Amino acid sequence: MSGHVAVLGAGSWGTAFAKVLADAGNEVTIWSRREQVAATIRSTGTNPDYLPGLRLPANVTATADAGKAVSGAWLVVLAVPSQTLRGNLAEWTGFLAPDATLVSLMKGIELGTTKRMSQVIVETAGVAADRVVVVSGPNLAPEIAAGQPAATVVACTDTDRATLVQNAVTTSYFRPYTNGDVIGTELGGAVKNVIALAYGIATAMRLGDNTKATLITRGLAETARLGVALGADPLTFAGLAGLGDLVATCTSPLSRNRTFGEHLGRGETLEQAQVATRQTAEGSRAAWPSVTWPGPTGWRCRSPSRSSGSATRASTPGWR
Amino acid sequence: MSGHVAVLGAGSWGTAFAKVLADAGNEVTIWSRREQVAATIRSTGTNPDYLPGLRLPANVTATADAGKAVSGAWLVVLAVPSQTLRGNLAEWTGFLAPDATLVSLMKGIELGTTKRMSQVIVETAGVAADRVVVVSGPNLAPEIAAGQPAATVVACTDTDRATLVQNAVTTSYFRPYTNGDVIGTELGGAVKNVIALAYGIATAMRLGDNTKATLITRGLAETARLGVALGADPLTFAGLAGLGDLVATCTSPLSRNRTFGEHLGRGETLEQAQVATRQTAEGSRAAWPSVTWPGPTGWRCRSPSRSSGSATRASTPGWR
Repeated sequence: MSGHVAVLGAGSWGTAFAKVLADAGNEVTIWSRREQVAATIRSTGTNPDYLPGLRLPANVTATADAGKAVSGAWLVVLAVPSQTLRGNLAEWTGFLAPDATLVSLMKGIELGTTKRMSQVIVETAGVAADRVVVVSGPNLAPEIAAGQPAATVVACTDTDRATLVQNAVTTSYFRPYTNGDVIGTELGGAVKNVIALAYGIATAMRLGDNTKATLITRGLAETARLGVALGADPLTFAGLAGLGDLVATCTSPLSRNRTFGEHLGRGETLEQAQVATRQTAEGSRAAWPSVTWPGPTGWRCRSPSRSSGSATRASTPGWR
Repeated sequence: MSGHVAVLGAGSWGTAFAKVLADAGNEVTIWSRREQVAATIRSTGTNPDYLPGLRLPANVTATADAGKAVSGAWLVVLAVPSQTLRGNLAEWTGFLAPDATLVSLMKGIELGTTKRMSQVIVETAGVAADRVVVVSGPNLAPEIAAGQPAATVVACTDTDRATLVQNAVTTSYFRPYTNGDVIGTELGGAVKNVIALAYGIATAMRLGDNTKATLITRGLAETARLGVALGADPLTFAGLAGLGDLVATCTSPLSRNRTFGEHLGRGETLEQAQVATRQTAEGSRAAWPSVTWPGPTGWRCRSPSRSSGSATRASTPGWR
């Protein structure tokens, strides 16, 4: 393809994905909101605030001027915080090339509207849905920056466009699989954070590997049922964007959502967990997407009752 | 149901499952090959060699006389080592009640014949396939013995019989889900050991959580394709007997297969790994079920080449 690729957002995933794109042979321009971050990337080829130790290839540059990054880009990768997407994108739309492909790296649900990121993109940029590609999978940024083997899902309703993006991000260490199911791919990435909270809670309560594996499996089955109700293919949740991302998120000590859950599992309130982790984990937002954050005031975990006579008889069809 | 339940095999899973059955209200007789183990269970209600710390309920007894255990039992639970099943069962068949239900707790493939355990049972006991029930899931025995929450799959081609067994093993801490797919349920439990070897290898090679989550996900997709070719339902592998068991096995430090894989990942040969772990992990047998153990002599892991140009393009249909 002629022209360059724009990566909008210089956080850890945006920066690691820029490296993948560059290693696959693309000319890449990263946009950062902060001129200082852009200048550091330009002059040193590093982004020490987000990925210390990473040296970006020579075919990566950076700017704080979004118009410069987006104009003439055949591929525009969106990697800003989920809740800022709508506002940011409104400012960028005028620079988009007529047939540019938009790629979403964001895993979240818009608060208030409960919309998926690709829906926000279609609405705000006024583009057809088949121009939007979602990339999602077990992709912890520091590991990808280190060149460790990883795989991901590239989802688009337009198969040719999915293949185009697949080709643009294939390297010796990064293996993309195409999928036509945008809804399932996005939901897997958003809902997994809620299950990771539960996994963290169980970990703090010293529950064992049977319990945690069951949380993952039955949590994923519940996600699949939600997905099917919203038009997704249930098998997507058994793949890299569902199970794969969920397992990486639950087992990694790097996961913010799991860590947040561990605080809840020790009996802290939502507010206390937020203070302790100095952040709001995406999963705790996604668990109550339609209400004003921070959700139910004073909410906290309760220990399960061990005295109940027998478990509810399980009779869910489908996933067992 | 009138009569008692027999559990044949006093290893850790047989013993923990006897506790579940007793907690669910059944009279249970455990058979142990060794009279000393049976006598200890009878006199102290414990099985310290396999589950130290467990106290069995009063409605559990034990014997070294298989005829006594099997005669009059309406439910006969088989929990002997996979490779000894055929020989053991041949001796017990004469004692089976005409409509007794046989339950397999065993996760393995018979070496030489490559048959599943339920196939060996049907062949050896001469019973109809719909009298055989398979129980499989993320069920690490020490955690179940400790009463930690767990779930499992109860699979039988006869739905009523599956429900019968489900009722017989439902407790406040153990939640069984019925499934008609015996083939998938058994394959999930057997093949997961092979993937756990790979997970152990990756762990020893210091590969990260993306790589390991991808191994689990793509390993499960491969298992599902094998399963479909053998007549299984692919969704079974996304459930507790597939994904659930696989995740528990890969993430638990108690897993023999993962530990065995870690030795291989450090560059040891199969023989060295066997000596170091003082055992043969089921997975290393299942990886070469049709050849004489210990498989290819001198086999060892190789480090992956990092210099290869690009990954093979992924084009697998179905699971992504």
